[in-house]
Amino acid sequence: MNTIASCEIICVGTELLLGEIVNTNAAFLSRRLADIGINVYHQSVVGDNARRLAEAIRTALGRCELLILTGGLGPTYDDLTKETVASVSERALKMDPVSLERIRSYFKLTGRAMTQNNEKQALIPEGAKAIQNNYGTAPGIYLETNDNVIVMLPGPPNELEPMFDEQVVPLIMQFTDGGIVSKSINIMGMGESAIEARLKELMLNSTNPTIAPYAKFGEVRLRVSAKSSTGDEGEAMALCNEMVERIKNTEIGEFIYGIDEPSITHAALKRLRKLGLKVATAESCTGGLVAKKLTDLAGSSDSFVSGVVSYCNEVKMQLLGVAPEIIAAHTEVSHECVCAMAEGVRKLLGADVGIATTGYAGPGGGNERDPVGTVYIAISTADNCISERLSYSSMRDRNFIREAAAARALLLIIKHLH
Amino acid sequence: MNTIASCEIICVGTELLLGEIVNTNAAFLSRRLADIGINVYHQSVVGDNARRLAEAIRTALGRCELLILTGGLGPTYDDLTKETVASVSERALKMDPVSLERIRSYFKLTGRAMTQNNEKQALIPEGAKAIQNNYGTAPGIYLETNDNVIVMLPGPPNELEPMFDEQVVPLIMQFTDGGIVSKSINIMGMGESAIEARLKELMLNSTNPTIAPYAKFGEVRLRVSAKSSTGDEGEAMALCNEMVERIKNTEIGEFIYGIDEPSITHAALKRLRKLGLKVATAESCTGGLVAKKLTDLAGSSDSFVSGVVSYCNEVKMQLLGVAPEIIAAHTEVSHECVCAMAEGVRKLLGADVGIATTGYAGPGGGNERDPVGTVYIAISTADNCISERLSYSSMRDRNFIREAAAARALLLIIKHLH
Repeated sequence: MNTIASCEIICVGTELLLGEIVNTNAAFLSRRLADIGINVYHQSVVGDNARRLAEAIRTALGRCELLILTGGLGPTYDDLTKETVASVSERALKMDPVSLERIRSYFKLTGRAMTQNNEKQALIPEGAKAIQNNYGTAPGIYLETNDNVIVMLPGPPNELEPMFDEQVVPLIMQFTDGGIVSKSINIMGMGESAIEARLKELMLNSTNPTIAPYAKFGEVRLRVSAKSSTGDEGEAMALCNEMVERIKNTEIGEFIYGIDEPSITHAALKRLRKLGLKVATAESCTGGLVAKKLTDLAGSSDSFVSGVVSYCNEVKMQLLGVAPEIIAAHTEVSHECVCAMAEGVRKLLGADVGIATTGYAGPGGGNERDPVGTVYIAISTADNCISERLSYSSMRDRNFIREAAAARALLLIIKHLH
Repeated sequence: MNTIASCEIICVGTELLLGEIVNTNAAFLSRRLADIGINVYHQSVVGDNARRLAEAIRTALGRCELLILTGGLGPTYDDLTKETVASVSERALKMDPVSLERIRSYFKLTGRAMTQNNEKQALIPEGAKAIQNNYGTAPGIYLETNDNVIVMLPGPPNELEPMFDEQVVPLIMQFTDGGIVSKSINIMGMGESAIEARLKELMLNSTNPTIAPYAKFGEVRLRVSAKSSTGDEGEAMALCNEMVERIKNTEIGEFIYGIDEPSITHAALKRLRKLGLKVATAESCTGGLVAKKLTDLAGSSDSFVSGVVSYCNEVKMQLLGVAPEIIAAHTEVSHECVCAMAEGVRKLLGADVGIATTGYAGPGGGNERDPVGTVYIAISTADNCISERLSYSSMRDRNFIREAAAARALLLIIKHLH
């Protein structure tokens, strides 16, 4: 093996083929591999079936340098991944004493009895090395052959992800020439096809950097990726930065809320922290989702005071102090109500900033003025209150409307706090 | 085509290979296909690349009767799915006038200008029929050949899912013999390997029905699937029910919270509705996630009053009425505090039932008595307050701990309200 240019990911597990779990591992690994300049041309899923797995492994080894397999390393009889890799690569399995010892201490540490079948997890193919698992029992496996690098990782994402980042990336980096870098432009408030219509020529004509859009819950990201001809990351980064500036100067510019932000929540918390402000939330239709997003991130207590999920009107009035006249005159889904909620929660919880949401997430509810898909959001500070009316197509489902509206509510922090 | 026994799913999109989106379509389709007795033996993902897509299509058509492709039906130049299917199956593309008219009215309805590239979406291969898209612009495509059925669906899940359920399932059901049924046993409070250790013999020896476990955020499901020899669903269902009863009578029985419940949230709301009770939530470490889960489901306002996200201690004391002495003596992460929170929110919001959470979701926080991963949960009614201490391994991440603890908090409703 000299260079890894392309990778194939095979995720093993009948539960994936039954649709009982969603394959987040393929997405995680692909994202990380893209970051280090390795192209993934195929992802595939096969069940706990030795024949089909062997076939998939043979096909993959013939068309890529790096093969990553996930799942099927556990203690049970239908865990077949390393057995099949061993058989395809004509290697025996041998007990890895370090792994065995770690499995034993894992059980001791978590106070559970170790059943016999767990020992099987310490078997690895001859010539391979074990990848330590600090988060579970099954070690990963790293195997270099003449033509390929084969990596096997356990299926649970909380085990696989740190193992890949901490141990596998350094091992495979030695086979890459580096030099690929990318920037992600975060855009909210303009749709994917509108963005593409405006950037079509640029996207078609630009091969280095490349520009690729993708949409998620009312947000669009543009991924700008550049490769240096010499492997010099500085050169590639300069190409990226230049393109980002060029895009910022189009009419898309005003909808860009950040560069390389993992999410709107990260961007909003960063802004609050920078300004030394604390936010409180009052949520009706998003039902706790804005608070949940803020508290997803460790350390959010620096900038998030607390929140109220005022799902019924009594709580809007009695706890948040929304005047009954406001609801009588404008209904609880209105500019007036959402501003009263934002102001009310800010004062109630002693925050600098109040964020509120109210609307019809569907499928029921709504009226002629405000059909299903209408959400009002507001931000209140000591100075003023600003509200927006969002209008999602009635073809959007409840989940989309709630996710998108919660994200737009957090965007108010970026737009109005400077 | 006479019978569809097996299916392959090919999801098309470079954004999947870059890991920019998670492939929920493969999981959705697989689950639905399992429900109607069609085996999925392969899922694969290829990018917006005509050569690799054609290769994947050829391979798939050679090893399954039903091929479902998702994505790549949009208006842009890198949408290649139907072009590639047409070329592999040697058919021309022709304009479907009904689809074209629908695309035009979609743009009219949503008030957006229709760009020229959108017309391409109404092209379908000769001999195929269009599958109407009521939620977006790109129609799906249904194509029957001598040896295969090929279905193409747009990538956005909110378009694909109703199109598949409403239009594709009836079309492919004519090629199945039916007779497969399954039941899912919902278990919480016992780990996957403990369950398997107890059921190993049953799982190994039972081929009809089969028993397959899978774990998700502190919950385990056992899927029991049976096939009738005669195609009679009643017979297969009887086999399933018998096995479910058998498993209920093992020591796993006490951890079963439901059968065929889509989630603990569904089960908890069903119980509340049945008893005519309304719940309020007070959340610290779960930060709104319990309220979010409850309000994920339309109609939850029947049983969910409102909630407080009491992330800081001031709000626990001032709003929920937790006595400062309780926090001083026991800290805010304690049986005493979580009970005071549950009782406080129940009274504050005039609910029948109060549910509360407080704990250390990590990575920071914790102490010797209660390290990271410790969460207290409580349920308060007019009669009493019951609390539990949950202890997740310090190897679990913040997301896992919050998701699992929120689910366990909802489980209190099932365990204590009868």
